[in-house]
Amino acid sequence: MSGNERPKLSRRAWITTASGVVAAGLVHTQADAMRLVAEEIPQQTQDPTRVPGRIVSELGTRAPAEQPRRLLRAQTLSSSSRTPLADLMGVITPSDLHFERHHAGVPDIAFGDHELLVHGMVERPMVFRMADLMRYPQVSRIRFLECSGNGGGVYSRTRMPTEVTVQAMDGLLSTSEWTGVPVSTILREVGVRPGASWILAEGSDAAVMSRSIPLDKVMDDSLLAYGQNGERLRPEQGYPLRLFNPGYEGNTSVKWLRRIEVTDRPTHTRDETSKYTDPLGDGTVRQFSLTMDAKSVITFPSYPFALPERGWWEARGLAWSGRGRITRVEVSTDGGRRWVDAALQGPILAKSTVRFRHLFEWQGDDTIILSRATDETGYVQPTVQQLWEARGERTSYHQNHQRAWKIARTGEVTFGLGELV
Amino acid sequence: MSGNERPKLSRRAWITTASGVVAAGLVHTQADAMRLVAEEIPQQTQDPTRVPGRIVSELGTRAPAEQPRRLLRAQTLSSSSRTPLADLMGVITPSDLHFERHHAGVPDIAFGDHELLVHGMVERPMVFRMADLMRYPQVSRIRFLECSGNGGGVYSRTRMPTEVTVQAMDGLLSTSEWTGVPVSTILREVGVRPGASWILAEGSDAAVMSRSIPLDKVMDDSLLAYGQNGERLRPEQGYPLRLFNPGYEGNTSVKWLRRIEVTDRPTHTRDETSKYTDPLGDGTVRQFSLTMDAKSVITFPSYPFALPERGWWEARGLAWSGRGRITRVEVSTDGGRRWVDAALQGPILAKSTVRFRHLFEWQGDDTIILSRATDETGYVQPTVQQLWEARGERTSYHQNHQRAWKIARTGEVTFGLGELV
Repeated sequence: MSGNERPKLSRRAWITTASGVVAAGLVHTQADAMRLVAEEIPQQTQDPTRVPGRIVSELGTRAPAEQPRRLLRAQTLSSSSRTPLADLMGVITPSDLHFERHHAGVPDIAFGDHELLVHGMVERPMVFRMADLMRYPQVSRIRFLECSGNGGGVYSRTRMPTEVTVQAMDGLLSTSEWTGVPVSTILREVGVRPGASWILAEGSDAAVMSRSIPLDKVMDDSLLAYGQNGERLRPEQGYPLRLFNPGYEGNTSVKWLRRIEVTDRPTHTRDETSKYTDPLGDGTVRQFSLTMDAKSVITFPSYPFALPERGWWEARGLAWSGRGRITRVEVSTDGGRRWVDAALQGPILAKSTVRFRHLFEWQGDDTIILSRATDETGYVQPTVQQLWEARGERTSYHQNHQRAWKIARTGEVTFGLGELV
Repeated sequence: MSGNERPKLSRRAWITTASGVVAAGLVHTQADAMRLVAEEIPQQTQDPTRVPGRIVSELGTRAPAEQPRRLLRAQTLSSSSRTPLADLMGVITPSDLHFERHHAGVPDIAFGDHELLVHGMVERPMVFRMADLMRYPQVSRIRFLECSGNGGGVYSRTRMPTEVTVQAMDGLLSTSEWTGVPVSTILREVGVRPGASWILAEGSDAAVMSRSIPLDKVMDDSLLAYGQNGERLRPEQGYPLRLFNPGYEGNTSVKWLRRIEVTDRPTHTRDETSKYTDPLGDGTVRQFSLTMDAKSVITFPSYPFALPERGWWEARGLAWSGRGRITRVEVSTDGGRRWVDAALQGPILAKSTVRFRHLFEWQGDDTIILSRATDETGYVQPTVQQLWEARGERTSYHQNHQRAWKIARTGEVTFGLGELV
């Protein structure tokens, strides 16, 4: 049933449904309605009911026309790939589209050979094989993971692109149902000694990614994760085992985890001194800025979309906070003068993305659309000016400021930033 | 770090962790502990930290050793493929492993050409193109989908296999985050006439799958779904558009939806008269048994697993109900004499699968393990005898009776049924 041959009809139906969104549809006469139907008799040559279909398969594939892809940065050992956020719906990220950030590539590790050593300030240093870990009480949680460098590429006043997609800007964000064993279970097993206050997590990639994490955090809700979205971890997500710290900057969730050392202080590894520290405006440096603050991004409308006509549109996006639940997302369609609460799609889970939507009427003028998130601690996503004032312009980490999209009279959408707000 | 070369060590660690699960671990001497560590110095030839890894990619792939597959029935136009439930964790089913049940194969439909006709007892018969539908307020919900024939293959007393997997028995069950437009939104758009009480949903596959659904149901929570687990529907799930009726038997969620007719009675199509009706013991037939009753399955231990040794194990499984939330799952490890509440993994969502787990000590004897689910209406998953009494043995639909697994002294697990309970 090709609508391309009936532009007049499709146009009519399209306008009707669009305006109908706000229960203010065009007036239809019965004649209109009947004509709509009469023209709809399918043509057999185009009728899929006349052709036997493809039979069942052991593994599904996407429709040929639906081929979302991650966006690659430099194809080097230390690189990243970004999730196509504007192509996605809901909150779950398909595992093959989950962002990557590796410092020395993806190691090839056999499930049966992998072992985790837990030692340091413990009563019983122990080695766990995957078969051991999978026998412990298993929990699953839907949580986001975001690289602390997400959004950093467009932060500096000196580099302020306007033709940038959500994927290129904020695609180092993904959400999965993670499955594994609470770290607290394993630490009770080995017996943490008095005075211990941090752990060191070490990966078995060629970067030997190593991060220090407060003991209180890992005892609270960190997982030794071996499952993602129902299946075993993908190699690029740490197969067969990764640490997962809900709400913390991504690289603390050390992939290909081989060692946990319990300590009484942070270890100050290369990965938390030369990197993943935030130079501030006053010349000092912020270290261990571990929690990802509340943030939101509008995925539609965004570059390179163009609104084909004025009228009612549903703005859609994602909001999340490393501190807990999102309690509110506001949207402004006039550059930040007036804000309206967006609808939030439940269930609203702590430290997970939440989908928000806001219906607005585009009058055909130049305008700017923004979103701002508030979490259960009362924290409100800051403006870019507030972030510049607090942190200066010398860091590209933790750039959670409000994103702005400029809609031109032509309907074309481009990325905006502080100067637009 | 290959553990295969250190069976004694691995064995020790393995027993330790297993018993540790119940905080009643073996007593460790410091000497034990230190030996565990000393033996763990990695051998460079096996150390992945000495080899650069694979770089980032546009699309992820599974580990070579992790290749779950759907199980195919007859490879004919009318066939099914089943989800590997025992291989999965949490509740989300990866989209390429979601079960299939087609009556005439998977049609090839172009997103831009597809149209939905809504007519019958409405004020304004209308045609919607995909671009129209995607402009309406969008909702996402995590819900299960189950074929009403799921489990039917092992129901009859005359066909009672013992060497059957969870996948072969109950693999016509999957759970996804579904995204689309509420049917109620579209029906308000066209204006339902007084006296309407049902709809007819028609697919554009070569079977022209057609089902009648009560109007109250579709107005309550049915979706015109175009998204699944973040991405566009897969072709085998109805691309570009399917009806999705949460909690209802699977084939009412008509795939490749092309027509909705609003009526004042059920249409009694071939697909709800010659099929999908339940012959009862008294010679009568039950029609429109639409809601899937509460059910649970243990995915571990299950055939063909074998417990390698006595001790503490975590039984794991899934429970779900088409009537709302699961409120309780009980597990028996003694053939149904004694029942213990299993732990439920939150969030517990209505009409979604919920993961349950129960730690039990296997003493090394012959035993039988079962689970039974209770939902928020108070409905309790029946025994197979109760189902036989109520429905006879002439139907293979809606077989939600308690499943039993027999654990032999050898540790081998086989499927059981009524005679074991």
